[in-house]
Amino acid sequence: MLSFILNRQYSEIRDDMDHHVIYFGNIFHSISFNESQEILDGFIAVEDGKIIAIGNKTEFEAWNYANKDTFKKINLTDTQFLIPGFVDSHIHAPQVPNIGLGLDKPLLDWLNTYTFPLETQYKDKNFAKQVYEKVVQRTLSSGTTTAAYFATIHKDSCKILADVANEKGQRAFIGKVAMNQYSPDTYVEELEQSLTDNEELINYIKDLKSDLITPIITPRFAISCSMEMMKKLAELARIHNLPIQSHISENVDEIKFTLELFSGHSNYAEVYDTAGLLTNRTIMAHAVHLENEEIELFAKRGTSVSHCPNSNTNLRSGLCDVKRLIAGGVKVGLGSDISGGNRISILDAMRAALDVSHHLNFMKKQNVLGTGQVVENKEKNAEYEPLDYKQALFLATLGGAQALSVSDVTGNFQIGKSFDALLIDTYEGTVDEFDLPKVLTENLSEHDKFEKLLQKFVYTGDDRNIIEVFVKGRQVKTK
Amino acid sequence: MLSFILNRQYSEIRDDMDHHVIYFGNIFHSISFNESQEILDGFIAVEDGKIIAIGNKTEFEAWNYANKDTFKKINLTDTQFLIPGFVDSHIHAPQVPNIGLGLDKPLLDWLNTYTFPLETQYKDKNFAKQVYEKVVQRTLSSGTTTAAYFATIHKDSCKILADVANEKGQRAFIGKVAMNQYSPDTYVEELEQSLTDNEELINYIKDLKSDLITPIITPRFAISCSMEMMKKLAELARIHNLPIQSHISENVDEIKFTLELFSGHSNYAEVYDTAGLLTNRTIMAHAVHLENEEIELFAKRGTSVSHCPNSNTNLRSGLCDVKRLIAGGVKVGLGSDISGGNRISILDAMRAALDVSHHLNFMKKQNVLGTGQVVENKEKNAEYEPLDYKQALFLATLGGAQALSVSDVTGNFQIGKSFDALLIDTYEGTVDEFDLPKVLTENLSEHDKFEKLLQKFVYTGDDRNIIEVFVKGRQVKTK
Ligand SMILES: [Zn+2]
Ligand SMILES: [Zn+2]
Repeated sequence: MLSFILNRQYSEIRDDMDHHVIYFGNIFHSISFNESQEILDGFIAVEDGKIIAIGNKTEFEAWNYANKDTFKKINLTDTQFLIPGFVDSHIHAPQVPNIGLGLDKPLLDWLNTYTFPLETQYKDKNFAKQVYEKVVQRTLSSGTTTAAYFATIHKDSCKILADVANEKGQRAFIGKVAMNQYSPDTYVEELEQSLTDNEELINYIKDLKSDLITPIITPRFAISCSMEMMKKLAELARIHNLPIQSHISENVDEIKFTLELFSGHSNYAEVYDTAGLLTNRTIMAHAVHLENEEIELFAKRGTSVSHCPNSNTNLRSGLCDVKRLIAGGVKVGLGSDISGGNRISILDAMRAALDVSHHLNFMKKQNVLGTGQVVENKEKNAEYEPLDYKQALFLATLGGAQALSVSDVTGNFQIGKSFDALLIDTYEGTVDEFDLPKVLTENLSEHDKFEKLLQKFVYTGDDRNIIEVFVKGRQVKTK
Repeated sequence: MLSFILNRQYSEIRDDMDHHVIYFGNIFHSISFNESQEILDGFIAVEDGKIIAIGNKTEFEAWNYANKDTFKKINLTDTQFLIPGFVDSHIHAPQVPNIGLGLDKPLLDWLNTYTFPLETQYKDKNFAKQVYEKVVQRTLSSGTTTAAYFATIHKDSCKILADVANEKGQRAFIGKVAMNQYSPDTYVEELEQSLTDNEELINYIKDLKSDLITPIITPRFAISCSMEMMKKLAELARIHNLPIQSHISENVDEIKFTLELFSGHSNYAEVYDTAGLLTNRTIMAHAVHLENEEIELFAKRGTSVSHCPNSNTNLRSGLCDVKRLIAGGVKVGLGSDISGGNRISILDAMRAALDVSHHLNFMKKQNVLGTGQVVENKEKNAEYEPLDYKQALFLATLGGAQALSVSDVTGNFQIGKSFDALLIDTYEGTVDEFDLPKVLTENLSEHDKFEKLLQKFVYTGDDRNIIEVFVKGRQVKTK
């Protein structure tokens, strides 16, 4: 960044006002799973895409900065506020055309009937270009400023996805899917070819010299990779210092088959660990049915989980207890898992995570009367507390950034991080000012008023309420 | 209807083409919980708001009708189709301003903190008018052609709601809430006043001479009504031949308190039955925790249930097993239960019902690994099948109409019923044609293509995909 600034004329920078912007208004972001910061009537100063100052009015007055007066000033309205951009820590870009389809089948059937035939199409670069343009546009429009993409086995289409995300300004992890066994004849690769193609993609992305785009090593899941392939992929990640993504323990049948295939392992996580795939930059989707020992192993390795509640429900996988993972020291983010998931928006993933957590809460506290089953011997947990909406917001932002090991760059509004942000307006879409008639708000504190707007956004908002989206300070969605 | 036609000049009718419309295109509607009808490239003929013919192309050719050529013809596009209007069988109109708020509290707390203070405001008719205009507009815009409204205790505001729904053309049940105990001092009524006000409202609605608007007897729930009040309300319903709505078994604490209050009853349903409130035109919201005997009683009385899955999750009530209710012979519809529910759209209620059903399925089949609990003694049900999306569509349309005892008039496209319909376009909003690239659809049958569009609407659509809404043939939403 510094060299970039030094290479430009000072006057050029001064004239280009959008590189220096101060937003005035309400601001909300997460500090940790249980802590958040609400700044009412505050400010964020952004210089060349980075947050250089943040605070309340008093702090703004006290903020001593040479060029302070030359910044472009933007005032938010009463119904607007800024939150960090959403992180989709698990999304299959090529599957977006299938969104909403075939959600009547469990995982392994669904893969063969719906997913593999579609993914095979991406051997055609024009098809890939056509779809990926819209995928990036639509995820940005839903507020996804960072996405961890599974692409397909086709290196050329992966390059297209990298180009599109880079051009449109999305922070993206691009994963060339690796799979050399238990796959359709038309959609499978040889180990050596897979590694060569992966190397080519890694170099291609390096040559983009974009700090937005990162290659990510992507074994599809254990079943579709030989142990040798997994070991070689782990080595590739080590050599190039790259993150890793895959799937784990999504479905009971999948777990059973995995343990049959990789005999001698006592659980699913051990299979990946043998291959060297569980690193502190690895993210595993689902983890619905992890045993306690597996959670311990994840915590020890620093491996994180992408929680994909919509997908887990649709594909009849199960209920993932994210609070159990977090209590076990595992980093967790949210994933749309399109097209196992039917909702491309991380706002919907938040709501689904809240629902799943509440339903787990019923199971831990109630005898679930009304199902015809009174389960006397059921182990209760009277202390269980389901997720709340601020924790869900954490998972959607900073949690995802931590899970993808990019929390030094994005996830909240800490000084020095990139300005990856959403401008929310609760006056848009189906949420409007009438939801809060004056008589109901006139006696409220500013804090209470703000909390109501935030709740309305989380519980009832959609992409229409996300009126502007910024990545590295660049506006990538306009109302 | 006939007298209406006879009173008009024939030429007047001929000129007024919108009273005679034929829609050509794809059509889908439910016949029963497990049966639906898909008519590809079909037609629906509507005369003065009623469906007079429906069928496929061959049937259209064979359709012998004198004025056939004078009908206005509307051709749907490839991405469009017609489905019956949605029935919201349980919504609190006055609570819409609170949508999305306070969903961190269980039922009884939430009522006192959020709901009662807001409902009290409706003593002000201007306030009521302002809110109810938008409530009806927004529910229509979401595709709700029939709504069973709880209003407040205030008769004048109830009249406003009746007027607004009538003017805007929504089929609506208007319930003046009755409550004479265990309520806030500022929001409670005397029994005699309650009955007088109810009579006044009933007569007011009768005088509207609208076949869209029906008064509905509305004891809030057993806790807030004395047994005497409930008995008098049951009598009022008998005298005026009116439907009844209330709440039952939403929450474990509520059930406990109800049985304490009305001692001598062995279950909640019996309390209402003693009062004479369980009729074959009664609909009870929630029914999350009904015992088997209560389900039997409901079936015997012909009393139905409004399933409100969003609300049951938000307010920590529980998981309602609708398949159990249906297997027990109980009619079931869907309710948004605003603002216990956070989604005003019945499309969202469908998705929530599917989610809850899938989560119950996990509980019946899995040991719910990954929650730290292996429940060995749990009674399994390997035969359980969760709801599918076509059954969810039934609940949202014909099921709701049956539950509200208006299935002779609305709920599907049977000849003689009112044309209460939604024109869906999967090209709108966040669902667009790119979701189904040509290469993926060119070899599909017309049936398979249509099913994909229908699935996309159910799993990913929103109000933007509902481009036109009709009630009794009148267009009440324009794109
Ligand atoms: Zn996935
Ligand atoms: Zn209710």
